[in-house]
Amino acid sequence: MAEQKKKSQPSEPLSDLIRRLYPICRSITGDGVRETLSIVSEWLSLELFEVPSGTPVFDWTVPNEWNVREAYVAKLDGDRVIDFRHQNLHVLNYSGAIDAVISRDELDNHLYSLPDHPDWIPYRTSYYAENWGFCVTQHQRDGLTDPAYRVVIDADLAPGSLTYAECFVQGESKQEVVLYTHICHPSLCNDNLSGIAVAAALGKALSACPRRHYSYRLVFGPGTIGSITWLSQNKERLKDIAHGLVIGLLGDDANFTYKRSRGGSNEIDDVVTYVLSQATPRHEVIDFSPYGYDERQFGSPGINLPVGRLTRSVNGGYAAYHSSGDDLSIISEARLQESVEIVTEILDTLEGNRRYINLSPNCEPQLGKRGLYRGTGGTEIADRESAMLWLLNQSDGTSSLLDIARKSGIKFSSLTSVADELRQAGLLDVSPE
Amino acid sequence: MAEQKKKSQPSEPLSDLIRRLYPICRSITGDGVRETLSIVSEWLSLELFEVPSGTPVFDWTVPNEWNVREAYVAKLDGDRVIDFRHQNLHVLNYSGAIDAVISRDELDNHLYSLPDHPDWIPYRTSYYAENWGFCVTQHQRDGLTDPAYRVVIDADLAPGSLTYAECFVQGESKQEVVLYTHICHPSLCNDNLSGIAVAAALGKALSACPRRHYSYRLVFGPGTIGSITWLSQNKERLKDIAHGLVIGLLGDDANFTYKRSRGGSNEIDDVVTYVLSQATPRHEVIDFSPYGYDERQFGSPGINLPVGRLTRSVNGGYAAYHSSGDDLSIISEARLQESVEIVTEILDTLEGNRRYINLSPNCEPQLGKRGLYRGTGGTEIADRESAMLWLLNQSDGTSSLLDIARKSGIKFSSLTSVADELRQAGLLDVSPE
Amino acid sequence: MAEQKKKSQPSEPLSDLIRRLYPICRSITGDGVRETLSIVSEWLSLELFEVPSGTPVFDWTVPNEWNVREAYVAKLDGDRVIDFRHQNLHVLNYSGAIDAVISRDELDNHLYSLPDHPDWIPYRTSYYAENWGFCVTQHQRDGLTDPAYRVVIDADLAPGSLTYAECFVQGESKQEVVLYTHICHPSLCNDNLSGIAVAAALGKALSACPRRHYSYRLVFGPGTIGSITWLSQNKERLKDIAHGLVIGLLGDDANFTYKRSRGGSNEIDDVVTYVLSQATPRHEVIDFSPYGYDERQFGSPGINLPVGRLTRSVNGGYAAYHSSGDDLSIISEARLQESVEIVTEILDTLEGNRRYINLSPNCEPQLGKRGLYRGTGGTEIADRESAMLWLLNQSDGTSSLLDIARKSGIKFSSLTSVADELRQAGLLDVSPE
Repeated sequence: MAEQKKKSQPSEPLSDLIRRLYPICRSITGDGVRETLSIVSEWLSLELFEVPSGTPVFDWTVPNEWNVREAYVAKLDGDRVIDFRHQNLHVLNYSGAIDAVISRDELDNHLYSLPDHPDWIPYRTSYYAENWGFCVTQHQRDGLTDPAYRVVIDADLAPGSLTYAECFVQGESKQEVVLYTHICHPSLCNDNLSGIAVAAALGKALSACPRRHYSYRLVFGPGTIGSITWLSQNKERLKDIAHGLVIGLLGDDANFTYKRSRGGSNEIDDVVTYVLSQATPRHEVIDFSPYGYDERQFGSPGINLPVGRLTRSVNGGYAAYHSSGDDLSIISEARLQESVEIVTEILDTLEGNRRYINLSPNCEPQLGKRGLYRGTGGTEIADRESAMLWLLNQSDGTSSLLDIARKSGIKFSSLTSVADELRQAGLLDVSPE
Repeated sequence: MAEQKKKSQPSEPLSDLIRRLYPICRSITGDGVRETLSIVSEWLSLELFEVPSGTPVFDWTVPNEWNVREAYVAKLDGDRVIDFRHQNLHVLNYSGAIDAVISRDELDNHLYSLPDHPDWIPYRTSYYAENWGFCVTQHQRDGLTDPAYRVVIDADLAPGSLTYAECFVQGESKQEVVLYTHICHPSLCNDNLSGIAVAAALGKALSACPRRHYSYRLVFGPGTIGSITWLSQNKERLKDIAHGLVIGLLGDDANFTYKRSRGGSNEIDDVVTYVLSQATPRHEVIDFSPYGYDERQFGSPGINLPVGRLTRSVNGGYAAYHSSGDDLSIISEARLQESVEIVTEILDTLEGNRRYINLSPNCEPQLGKRGLYRGTGGTEIADRESAMLWLLNQSDGTSSLLDIARKSGIKFSSLTSVADELRQAGLLDVSPE
Repeated sequence: MAEQKKKSQPSEPLSDLIRRLYPICRSITGDGVRETLSIVSEWLSLELFEVPSGTPVFDWTVPNEWNVREAYVAKLDGDRVIDFRHQNLHVLNYSGAIDAVISRDELDNHLYSLPDHPDWIPYRTSYYAENWGFCVTQHQRDGLTDPAYRVVIDADLAPGSLTYAECFVQGESKQEVVLYTHICHPSLCNDNLSGIAVAAALGKALSACPRRHYSYRLVFGPGTIGSITWLSQNKERLKDIAHGLVIGLLGDDANFTYKRSRGGSNEIDDVVTYVLSQATPRHEVIDFSPYGYDERQFGSPGINLPVGRLTRSVNGGYAAYHSSGDDLSIISEARLQESVEIVTEILDTLEGNRRYINLSPNCEPQLGKRGLYRGTGGTEIADRESAMLWLLNQSDGTSSLLDIARKSGIKFSSLTSVADELRQAGLLDVSPE
């Protein structure tokens, strides 16, 4: 895939894509989501799904759709002191409509700010509790000294639909690898325009790459209610999900953190920890916990799919998390590209991680007569010969290439290449699943 | 139970009980045992059992009953130099009767002393080998310089019975938790008047506490032959023993030591190690070994019950062990009460350690609509919400609350309280056993 | 066995045997092998097997037999500058015949030397690729300054047979312990005249020792093709191989290294690691890998027998490995004898490592009434009593004596002796397999 990826490398850098998506007001529903997906579809072929408000999805119900036209706090002389047009984080996400003059004290009950970071606007939501409110910097809040203000939120919260999109790439097998990234956050860059951009690059590369073993499904959906909706709408398909990754927060300077699937020792867990350990000692692997992003739903007890999560920073793990501080300055093209490379390596390793059967299992086969072994003995063997011996010895159908790589210390990529040689020599075959 | 325990806290301190029991001459049979149990029954309701001498109990036979009226070594002028009336340890436990004038040298063959602790009288027994003897301080032994002495042991070793007692508290379940403490030692305080006193306090508290899941059976019996007799007489009941603890040596200053059951990883082992680790870093957990107290019999291969042992000092683990040095000065009320608290915590944890089933297992249930979750999102969740997510996520019937406590790092007591909330909300049910 | 071993200790030291075998030109076939086995058969009863060239053995074919009469490089005036008569390593093992005058440059293409060890002659082979060549010191190579030389190798490479030998000692059981040592190396002492000598001593001792549980089969065969041939010719017998060891490189000063069987945790692995850990902290245990000696074939996926490998230095693990530096100076009688002792201890431990059943499993049996326990109680128990309690407690058929030794910390030999006492007392029986 590495080669195909290079061919299909877009001329437009990922940070440019993020720069276009940054100003859009997104939420778990609404036109901001549709506009975002429309831009992403310039990179890869996306199928959009609209699930009507009111649709039952497991224990939940698809909520009304939310769209904001305008929102501000103004002095009574009309001077707007807080304005949604400047920064969409200003409005409490899923806030109801209001148009009223209220006292400063009453207004204060509807304000959210960060005393410890007086320059940042917090990101707050109220999806399922009716409320209205404004998120402001601490300086803005402190500057509200008039006795009364006019507050206007011109928003619809009305039946509509929840929108998600899929990029599907058919492979040889019905078995799927699912990648899920959340698209519901408004103007926040690392969380999660970075995930959207990385997924776009991966989908583009996968689509350009023929003859894959697995089928791949990239899902762009809102957090929590999005994965719940997707899982509920795709119940029949879940049995075909062989591996999965929730991806997000992939643009900042932090080292990679892998959060294991609920099972803890699924193949995806082995593959990601192997790829990260080969790539850099500076990474962290943490156990599953039922709090974070959409891995919570994939890892609920009734679903329990082998889906891990790859991020750089984790949820709540950096100062600017869920605030306007999570802006374009904290992500970089280099980190985004590195994230694309790591996920690509993970998918390539999943692809190559077959179990083989030694077709000549009684004693070593005579490699020399097949031209696979040096003629003169007495010296130590070459790495390639060592890889052959390990593969032949361990290929009884119980060990995958990754198992052999970890046991032998031989690089996974050396084993895949030697496996091809041995298959061509008739000494190895893929183990029936 | 903590609350009930406080209500039923006896006015009489445990050390007073021990002070009353201390002078009585106990053995594996005899009136001293009956007198002891009679005093203990002032604390809790006890049922006494008498098993006749000669009764076969597995590979053993209930021995004759032993009672001493008088025992002394006297100069030929009648002056008693060693006298059972002063300290019942003086007579070799289960010594036969004698009334004779013998030479100093012959007497010496029947004396037991501790050269390294010349002020202490050792505790020695000869239950199954006919013998007579006196246990003396080294100073007393050195002072026996007359050529001959009169030795008198006025004792019966004759058919009678072995006595043990039970305090049974019926719970909702037929499944029992058994606590066993040995009552056969004469004037030794830590080993094991401490165990008797702690068991008395526990039995009193359990009896005062309604609505328990398990039934509880506290057994007061002699060491080795007592547990062998009890197990032999209760063969039909053994299948109902879910958990057990041998308790003793619980009054001295040493840290707690838990000795695992023979299986090594039974629920009782998990519970005790968890409770001790929460209570204090200064404790020790040791593996099962077939030497010690009555856990030897519970852990014999044909019985093999999940019974661990909780002590402070272990057998042989302190200088005064099995000597008159094990007196009132080495135990304290504070340590005895702390022991009662730890065992209470262990029993409470066993009680609460259920397995639950998430009744809404596909994705997370919507806690918000049930008023169980905060309305405004974007910030980190509260501990209570975290406990809910963990419980719901892990409750597939395979994990107990203790498993979840250990995996999540959430306190066991927080989980039990949240489990009640989730049951009331219809989201959780107790897993069928 | 220790006692029998002493009785049968040969007057001739092992280093004398090695000194006699050292000058012989061995290979994977040929008269040098037969001469070697003939000398070894002075120590123990050997049965020789001849497998004709061309016989298919799994994926291989028994090669033509190789015998060299004479080989040299001479100046054109007839002066021999390299001569097989001085050191049989000079000829490339399995070299074809040649008699020609060739240029210095052409000759150089057929020379093997060690630039880093200019005084040593390397050991090189070309069993399966037709070739001819000379192995020389770097000094010799540098001294070949004439423009042309006469090269003569008077060798047969013609149909004949592959020779291996067995020393079989019948035990009570059909189950066998196999020891394999390779005999194909020419004048190399540690690799592997040491293994041949140690095997000879072991076979002699085993033959002199009656009433063993296992049958023992010592196989003296060439490396790789020898074990392949043996396994192929003995397919029916493989199911009876309970344990095995490949032995070699046992005469030098290095610490012992045990290489685990392919399974990694077979009984032979437990036994050898236990014996080595009891004998000396200075030893190493390494995992199986499919490169080394004949454990490669025993550990191929279709054979997969519980066969480990015991050496001192490992293959490639010392400077003189596979060169004329591996001569008499790097081995010693003391190390050879120590190797015999360690393997003897391993075999004795395998012999004694039974599983027992406690015939009185409900509570402890009353040892005192059988005279197996002290009469006076109150003191700590003796080691012998502790060994009894451990044995009785763990003997439910699932634990071997070695398991109990490791769990209890009691010496294996103490347990075997106590097991005999308990069997005689009717308390223990050997568990049916």
